[in-house]
Amino acid sequence: MSFYTIDFEPVGRRGQCPPGKSLLDCAGELGIGILRTCGGKGTCHSCKVQVLKGGVSEPSASERAFFSQAEINEGWRLACQTYPTSDCKLSIPPLSMNVPQRTQVEGLEMTFLPEPAVRSYHVEMPPPSLSDMRADTERLLQTLNERYQLYCHTIDIDVLRQLSPQLRPWNWQCQASVRDSEVIAIYPWPARQLGLAVDLGTTKIAGYLVDLSNGQTLVAKGIMNPQIGYGEDIISRITRVIESPAESGRLKDLVIEAIGQLAADMCSEVKAGVAEIVDVAVAGNTAMHHLFCKLPVKSLASAPFLPVVCQALDIKARDLGLCVAPGAYVHMLPNIAGFVGADHVAMLLATGVWQAEGVRLAIDIGTNTEVSLIDNGNITSVSCASGPAFEGGHIKDGMRAASGAIERLRIEGGRTEYQTIEGTPPTGICGSGILDALAQLYRTGIINRRGMITDGDPRVRTSGKQREFTVVSEQERNGQPAITVTQHDVRELQLAKAAIRTGIQVLLEANSRAESEIEQIIIAGAFGSYIDVVSAITIGMLPAVSTDRFQQVGNAAGMGTKLVLLSRKKRAEAETIASRVRYIELASFPGFMQTFVQASYIGPYTRKKSR
Amino acid sequence: MSFYTIDFEPVGRRGQCPPGKSLLDCAGELGIGILRTCGGKGTCHSCKVQVLKGGVSEPSASERAFFSQAEINEGWRLACQTYPTSDCKLSIPPLSMNVPQRTQVEGLEMTFLPEPAVRSYHVEMPPPSLSDMRADTERLLQTLNERYQLYCHTIDIDVLRQLSPQLRPWNWQCQASVRDSEVIAIYPWPARQLGLAVDLGTTKIAGYLVDLSNGQTLVAKGIMNPQIGYGEDIISRITRVIESPAESGRLKDLVIEAIGQLAADMCSEVKAGVAEIVDVAVAGNTAMHHLFCKLPVKSLASAPFLPVVCQALDIKARDLGLCVAPGAYVHMLPNIAGFVGADHVAMLLATGVWQAEGVRLAIDIGTNTEVSLIDNGNITSVSCASGPAFEGGHIKDGMRAASGAIERLRIEGGRTEYQTIEGTPPTGICGSGILDALAQLYRTGIINRRGMITDGDPRVRTSGKQREFTVVSEQERNGQPAITVTQHDVRELQLAKAAIRTGIQVLLEANSRAESEIEQIIIAGAFGSYIDVVSAITIGMLPAVSTDRFQQVGNAAGMGTKLVLLSRKKRAEAETIASRVRYIELASFPGFMQTFVQASYIGPYTRKKSR
Repeated sequence: MSFYTIDFEPVGRRGQCPPGKSLLDCAGELGIGILRTCGGKGTCHSCKVQVLKGGVSEPSASERAFFSQAEINEGWRLACQTYPTSDCKLSIPPLSMNVPQRTQVEGLEMTFLPEPAVRSYHVEMPPPSLSDMRADTERLLQTLNERYQLYCHTIDIDVLRQLSPQLRPWNWQCQASVRDSEVIAIYPWPARQLGLAVDLGTTKIAGYLVDLSNGQTLVAKGIMNPQIGYGEDIISRITRVIESPAESGRLKDLVIEAIGQLAADMCSEVKAGVAEIVDVAVAGNTAMHHLFCKLPVKSLASAPFLPVVCQALDIKARDLGLCVAPGAYVHMLPNIAGFVGADHVAMLLATGVWQAEGVRLAIDIGTNTEVSLIDNGNITSVSCASGPAFEGGHIKDGMRAASGAIERLRIEGGRTEYQTIEGTPPTGICGSGILDALAQLYRTGIINRRGMITDGDPRVRTSGKQREFTVVSEQERNGQPAITVTQHDVRELQLAKAAIRTGIQVLLEANSRAESEIEQIIIAGAFGSYIDVVSAITIGMLPAVSTDRFQQVGNAAGMGTKLVLLSRKKRAEAETIASRVRYIELASFPGFMQTFVQASYIGPYTRKKSR
Repeated sequence: MSFYTIDFEPVGRRGQCPPGKSLLDCAGELGIGILRTCGGKGTCHSCKVQVLKGGVSEPSASERAFFSQAEINEGWRLACQTYPTSDCKLSIPPLSMNVPQRTQVEGLEMTFLPEPAVRSYHVEMPPPSLSDMRADTERLLQTLNERYQLYCHTIDIDVLRQLSPQLRPWNWQCQASVRDSEVIAIYPWPARQLGLAVDLGTTKIAGYLVDLSNGQTLVAKGIMNPQIGYGEDIISRITRVIESPAESGRLKDLVIEAIGQLAADMCSEVKAGVAEIVDVAVAGNTAMHHLFCKLPVKSLASAPFLPVVCQALDIKARDLGLCVAPGAYVHMLPNIAGFVGADHVAMLLATGVWQAEGVRLAIDIGTNTEVSLIDNGNITSVSCASGPAFEGGHIKDGMRAASGAIERLRIEGGRTEYQTIEGTPPTGICGSGILDALAQLYRTGIINRRGMITDGDPRVRTSGKQREFTVVSEQERNGQPAITVTQHDVRELQLAKAAIRTGIQVLLEANSRAESEIEQIIIAGAFGSYIDVVSAITIGMLPAVSTDRFQQVGNAAGMGTKLVLLSRKKRAEAETIASRVRYIELASFPGFMQTFVQASYIGPYTRKKSR
């Protein structure tokens, strides 16, 4: 009997489905929580999914009744009514999920004085009369400037178009939002002044709705990046854009729409409208930055991987298609290089590490891992192609950090202990679990330094052509397929950890520093904040320094973006960081390949003696 | 037999048409030159017209074959196939006219040093390499700034979006157009730097395509303002916008489209593209300014007639919907008041009168007449509702300055001598001819000081209820209706001239100056440059000072707009003028009504002695 491979996005879970089994049942077996309110009868329509790729059965009568032809053409189906006829890729919209995905929006908290780029002023104008026939613009600007000692001399054209019909019913009183010398919005007085910070990740988007007057975060919310349907990692997404100009526009629009929706959702939680958002700050990796700004990404795809722009940008939100206050700008944090983006700058800013004394390492682990070594104020950065393994990609039972994912794992004697997200029955292994698994397999000798799964342990078996270690057996899963770590999985993890370790070694070498001199290792990002540092040291991914030198800071990029939103000074600091970094292109660093080979061994990194 | 009144736009000619006569024949009798290539058989389709108002016959088979249903719904017809069934208003598109309308685009010429707001630089960048991995933006800006000692630090987002795919095939060489600290366009080197100046009139639009590098005007072109179909004068157009929000959008779009087309036409004459236009300057009266910027005009329609904005504006061309260089701005010259607009500022600037010594008068005659008195640098301005009479409106045989219009008229003894535009047989009287007629009728005693047409002259007859003076008889026109000046026409002209003279008197009184102290009277505008100053003095429209003190400067507003396009200094001067003017609202000036009554008398203005 042949099986089809079904790839469920955005959860990132892949599984086998025999012909004759519905997509809903297949998801159920993999532990993916698609809603099934009516029990799979096709009546509740709660299990809406979109088939992105692959063949499926013809739409049933109940699907035809529920979806328009246009929706069916776009691949929309009810999972309970649809049967795969080939390998497939599906997208599950958030509303069809019974448990939300875990998206990290928390980050390290700091105290600082808010001094946002946009400030608000209460303006009471004298009404016009025959002895005061100033135009509305002059009336507003002159009153504002005299009252607050400003030198504000323009009004955004979209604000200008509303000015006259607004000031009259408001009885010549308003709250004016001013950025530099420009009025970017007016409101009936009194009004809130909201700001939006966005940490734009390849997989996830974290949004923060902030009160600019006091710096308070009113709402924090994470969503999946909807571009994921066009490629899970940056490279495949860039390739898609370059190869299909038709899809490229849609792909770029998707992220703007998603952020617009995220902003609207957050605003509605505090009973505000998006027009009350007077400033926006966005940080992402360079590719996401470019896609968001609708900049071409072609030059990012081939050596020397140059961005269109590194410096910070201030773009009118309307020129990006984002609906906020009429004249508001979007501040894009600066990038460092093609694969070290503004999110890394935001992280360096938020942690303050960039101006710390001594030797410090700051790491953002992801599909692409950015590492900076700060040596008494000198910042050197590299980008490591660590791949999707730590996000569950290319791993047989890998999945993203969602309900049912094994996130912690320990092998004690003959027992394998694990912990799943939300404590639900295990459905796969997420990044931190995979890292633990590798460390535990190495520690217990089940894999050797070269990463070979050895014979001898009863949990090791051969399936197909490769060995695998059973984490959760078929029995324990009541007949469902076992969750295993295969030899191929170990190879993927070795490549990932080697990439990261190579980056660290190159940075140390370039700065003539030894591992032992590192005083602090900051690990940022969603994955980084969940990993067991001891496991990372065990496999040799991170330097073997005392664990008290490690600091897991969560979503520091999001925090840095918030800082930039709230403070002109921090905005300037971010630019200083980006301009001060020395970027090293790993592949061109002398001895790169040798270092990479050494870093592929599991266990402590040892430098091969040169003959 | 009943006649229908047919109103032909944009020529402004109105005539009678009996049922059974085609619109084409009717136009022919009135001397309006609609093309009739096939002789009216409905085959050449050259006589396309649009029926704006009124009833006409059903479309013929040949019209149905030529026009789409949508076009027919919009009123498009062939004039030769269409018969009026009620009073009608038509619009004749330029392509259907056999002689172009006279639109004044020439103005007084000045010499000055071009120092435009947008400057262009040749940039040759080092190509990227592993030792120079700067992003494209930084590469361009740093090379530009170092080479030319600039401090240019941003690139317009639309330029940025094209930067990478352009610089590579151009081999890292380009011409960058810089405005303040922003790159607003890049071109393959070498490229021209074109500028567009627009004098945006209620009736006519004059465009100038200028080479910014040397100040040379490459093309000057005039077109009719297409908004004319929505109301001939400002007030009726504003009313239309306020009463019909649905039409308001279309009306605003029309003028942008027309200027876009004008720019494209002028560019094609010098084999350029509109994307080569890196800067635009626009001056119009306040209402046209607001409609162009898509600003609300409601506050212009009722006392105290306040504009939304007076100060100069710099708006991204894309925010106005105008297609020029990707990041270019449109500079809107400043307004003075609701009915003294940027075109008047441009005129004061171009003539230099604003900083001249002594007492000077500067007048823009039109449907609305703006007058400024400059008293040793102090500028006082008024706006006079002179009405459409001088543009041929509300005058029985009035028409705009087009082929066949009587533009000069002299009565010597029993003879009436006249001269028509282009020397073609007379079809009506335009403004300068009407002014002459009034002066000559007064000089020869045919009308008295009160404006009554007296009996006695053989050319005076009574038609209907009123007397009229025959300028061209039925006989002289081979049986076509006579061209006459009616008692009603004289009343209209009296109101027009009284409005203008009242403005002048109020200005003199407000500055405690006498008529005799005026050293110079500048008359600007299309109408003003064609009028006979002696006629204007004779009827008392203008002060009775020696004719050598008069200067007719043509389209000074257009010239001023060009100056602003070409010179930052002139741009600043225009703002100085606008901010320095003291505006007087005529209706609220003490003694306004008495002055107006006195000014209504024909002949020299005399102040009624107060008892």
